[in-house]
Amino acid sequence: MSTVREATYDLWRAHGMRTIFGNPGSTELPMLADFPDDFRYVLGLQEAVVVGMADGFAQASGTVGHANLHTAPGVGNAMGAIFNAQANHTPLLISAGQQVRPAVTMQANLTNREATRMPHPLVKWSYEPPRAEDVPAAIGRAIHTAAMAPKGPTFVSVPMDDWTVEAPADPTAHAIARTVSNRAGPAAERITSLAGQLSAAANPVMVAGPDVDASGGWDHAVALAEKQRLPVWAIPAPGGGRLGFPENHPNFKGILPPAIGPAAETLAGHDLILVAGASVFSYYPYIPGDLLPEGAVLVAITSDPDEAARAPMGDAIVADVALTLEALVVALDDTERAAPEQREGPMEPPESDPISGTEAMATLAGVFPEDGIVVLEAPSSTLALRNQLRLSRPESYYFGAGGGLGFGLAAAVGVQLAEPDRQVVCVVGEGSAQYAITAFWSAAAYDVPVKFCVLRNSEYAILKWFSLAEGVEGAPGLDLPALDVAAVAAGYGVPSRKVEGAEQLRDGLEQALAAEGPALVEVGVAPGMWLG
Amino acid sequence: MSTVREATYDLWRAHGMRTIFGNPGSTELPMLADFPDDFRYVLGLQEAVVVGMADGFAQASGTVGHANLHTAPGVGNAMGAIFNAQANHTPLLISAGQQVRPAVTMQANLTNREATRMPHPLVKWSYEPPRAEDVPAAIGRAIHTAAMAPKGPTFVSVPMDDWTVEAPADPTAHAIARTVSNRAGPAAERITSLAGQLSAAANPVMVAGPDVDASGGWDHAVALAEKQRLPVWAIPAPGGGRLGFPENHPNFKGILPPAIGPAAETLAGHDLILVAGASVFSYYPYIPGDLLPEGAVLVAITSDPDEAARAPMGDAIVADVALTLEALVVALDDTERAAPEQREGPMEPPESDPISGTEAMATLAGVFPEDGIVVLEAPSSTLALRNQLRLSRPESYYFGAGGGLGFGLAAAVGVQLAEPDRQVVCVVGEGSAQYAITAFWSAAAYDVPVKFCVLRNSEYAILKWFSLAEGVEGAPGLDLPALDVAAVAAGYGVPSRKVEGAEQLRDGLEQALAAEGPALVEVGVAPGMWLG
Repeated sequence: MSTVREATYDLWRAHGMRTIFGNPGSTELPMLADFPDDFRYVLGLQEAVVVGMADGFAQASGTVGHANLHTAPGVGNAMGAIFNAQANHTPLLISAGQQVRPAVTMQANLTNREATRMPHPLVKWSYEPPRAEDVPAAIGRAIHTAAMAPKGPTFVSVPMDDWTVEAPADPTAHAIARTVSNRAGPAAERITSLAGQLSAAANPVMVAGPDVDASGGWDHAVALAEKQRLPVWAIPAPGGGRLGFPENHPNFKGILPPAIGPAAETLAGHDLILVAGASVFSYYPYIPGDLLPEGAVLVAITSDPDEAARAPMGDAIVADVALTLEALVVALDDTERAAPEQREGPMEPPESDPISGTEAMATLAGVFPEDGIVVLEAPSSTLALRNQLRLSRPESYYFGAGGGLGFGLAAAVGVQLAEPDRQVVCVVGEGSAQYAITAFWSAAAYDVPVKFCVLRNSEYAILKWFSLAEGVEGAPGLDLPALDVAAVAAGYGVPSRKVEGAEQLRDGLEQALAAEGPALVEVGVAPGMWLG
Repeated sequence: MSTVREATYDLWRAHGMRTIFGNPGSTELPMLADFPDDFRYVLGLQEAVVVGMADGFAQASGTVGHANLHTAPGVGNAMGAIFNAQANHTPLLISAGQQVRPAVTMQANLTNREATRMPHPLVKWSYEPPRAEDVPAAIGRAIHTAAMAPKGPTFVSVPMDDWTVEAPADPTAHAIARTVSNRAGPAAERITSLAGQLSAAANPVMVAGPDVDASGGWDHAVALAEKQRLPVWAIPAPGGGRLGFPENHPNFKGILPPAIGPAAETLAGHDLILVAGASVFSYYPYIPGDLLPEGAVLVAITSDPDEAARAPMGDAIVADVALTLEALVVALDDTERAAPEQREGPMEPPESDPISGTEAMATLAGVFPEDGIVVLEAPSSTLALRNQLRLSRPESYYFGAGGGLGFGLAAAVGVQLAEPDRQVVCVVGEGSAQYAITAFWSAAAYDVPVKFCVLRNSEYAILKWFSLAEGVEGAPGLDLPALDVAAVAAGYGVPSRKVEGAEQLRDGLEQALAAEGPALVEVGVAPGMWLG
């Protein structure tokens, strides 16, 4: 016989979930007692960091991540990061302690009085087992639910007196042994009809999104684009949590503008718009216009029923993105259409002092490792990075798709822990870094060799850009004077260097990339948005 | 005619709410446009800090605080701090931006798809007006609801295109002009019967909690204790967000232990236990036992119907605490009972190297300003501070009553902004400081002269103590090596000094207290819990 705790660790072993990200409190100690040697605990100093690290780890490892939080306040601090995980479609088990069962009704201190209701809007399933004996099965259910498309976070609250109770043998053994798959391709007639639409189209185009990569459909997307000579756009950057297509591929055209009118204008002339692995679309800001160019139809392939339902235009097929793309490649013949025209190389950065975001990203591109991974949270230079680096390998780009800041710094640590043999470069603005700043401590404490590149422009540049777009003047709180991320990161134990200009930046990045452990380079950049 | 924005600022003026704490995003810019000169905007770099500052400001100023957050991710990051505000009974308006109305149904990027449901478990009212024209009335309703007992946070989500719409004149004028009061004393017969119980009791005792201070009942509590010669205990420290009684008063006996059995044992011999302004009780950890000593009855006075309903024992009177205490003083004659025995002075700190938390707090007591204010978040030294400082003025102590970390550092900045003429000393552990670390930037950027006293013990001491209490061994994540708060705070612009030993600490505190702006002293303390 084993305890609920022993059985639950066996369950996690069965799912390959042997890394736990956490910030412990008294209510989590019984779960963590006699912590097994074959597990790894990664401490985050604030819960936004804990969930952000688990998010990055889950996405990069392809396993269900696990974040363990401290009852109500711990879940509370993490809610922004849980919002990001939902937007990223990250499979994530979030567990939290709860007061002992005898003290819940009187609401003793640290009782999570609304345990299941608090995270509920952001998770796929939120549960507190009615008996200790149900904990392994409940956590098993949460893991399966998180891992099924559309992937996302799930939540289980566990009263702290449950862990030492004996687990019932038979149902627990089944809970540990079960596997579940909902990976499913579309019905054959949908493939036939979509293949027919593609073949018949005069000027079709593909728009690729994050679930191409997350579903393992990268090569199929490339094969489809090449076979059908499709020009390919990336979805608007705000929703692009991962890349959907190699950005130096001859068929790749660029990134769609993130607003209704401009996006439709960009796609003008196409008669069939095939969206793969994305919502339609993560518009931002609101610039009205026709949703589709004249004469165009749109078909979206998504594994998320809600994305399919809420799209404001077009048809949708709900199915595994990789399987659908693969089936389309099989169903289609080579096309007679002309190959798309190749886009130009990255723009030459304008000369300026301090350097532009574009020049900073061009400098990074010059030293970026062949198999490097970017974790990005620098709103003023998102497009500059995409356009200058043109990342072209799968599983090489992670970005907070929900628009919430705090993902980048923490996720980079998690990605690096999942990918110890690849170099992770985290590009963040000095404002963005503040939402999960203590991730620096975790990087230093666990010697996680992320290379941080901090762009300092002394403002919330994207908000000034939005102010112009919205006709807003005189708003306070848009400047960030005297924010010294290098000093703070050094305080947390990350070797840090401040540089100015492209030459020093290149030198600093090279030194950081050559360092064994984490390292940071902060560079001053000119204010404003850098789009190229 | 005025716009919704102009009318809403008039509403805030009418309520004396001219300080807005915020972290802006694109969806908040239209609210912040043409920010009026008679308002103050205080930027926090992460939302836990924004709400923590607003919480401290609201409690110390006696007004409804206002935190403005950035749609879903901003509210998400703030949820832990909103949990604390709920536990603190802090009157707080939380406003958040929302996508433009035409883009909500398609869920454009940064749409708050569950705007009212996300904060709902933690706020008294959660709303998104169905029309722009309703915004001023909705925010007025939220302010009234927050300010009525039991005080607490309320939430309003405002689509960003609402602010420039014209406000309808007549209903808006009423919304701005209305006042609401639910301050109400108990029915006369309840006072008569409770006064009778007190007169007839052989050995009554008072247990005082945070709403004595928050309701303005401090002097009435003292008068009642003196008139009836009541010994007075403070409620268990975890729930004590504010003090309920002067802690150097001859009648004051100390702080109740925070567990069922020990608390009842402490109160043994009393036949009537009068609880004022608190829940019954914020127990933590779970140590079972009789809820009341033999022969005792308990009567609790609280303004919170839920506190009254959920108490596991005793009777309760739901009414304004100050009015009830005042009525009791009037209804009662002087007693013939003997005066309670006075407790001993603070314990002499044990000698150790590094110094104990007790010695650190004794040192602070030696230099603490006459009218100083403490904001406390150092779990290992909570009792040492209470016992050594024996604070005895109203509105002089603020502590996160919910048990969630992240309140202290941020709240201290808010308290100091509300009380510019008193010195605020924020005592935090180096672990606690991490949950709202960017509050240092706000302190520096706005030159808020909080004095931070950081106790560094290189561990989560309270969790090691709980591990012993719970019989847990081998739990990871309880040590905090190499956490250098002084360096991080200096990175954020707060002049910081690291000291060792009582003499250097006294010197450091004196220099900090003499400084014009914010200042920090970090002192190494011995591991473990400091109770005296």
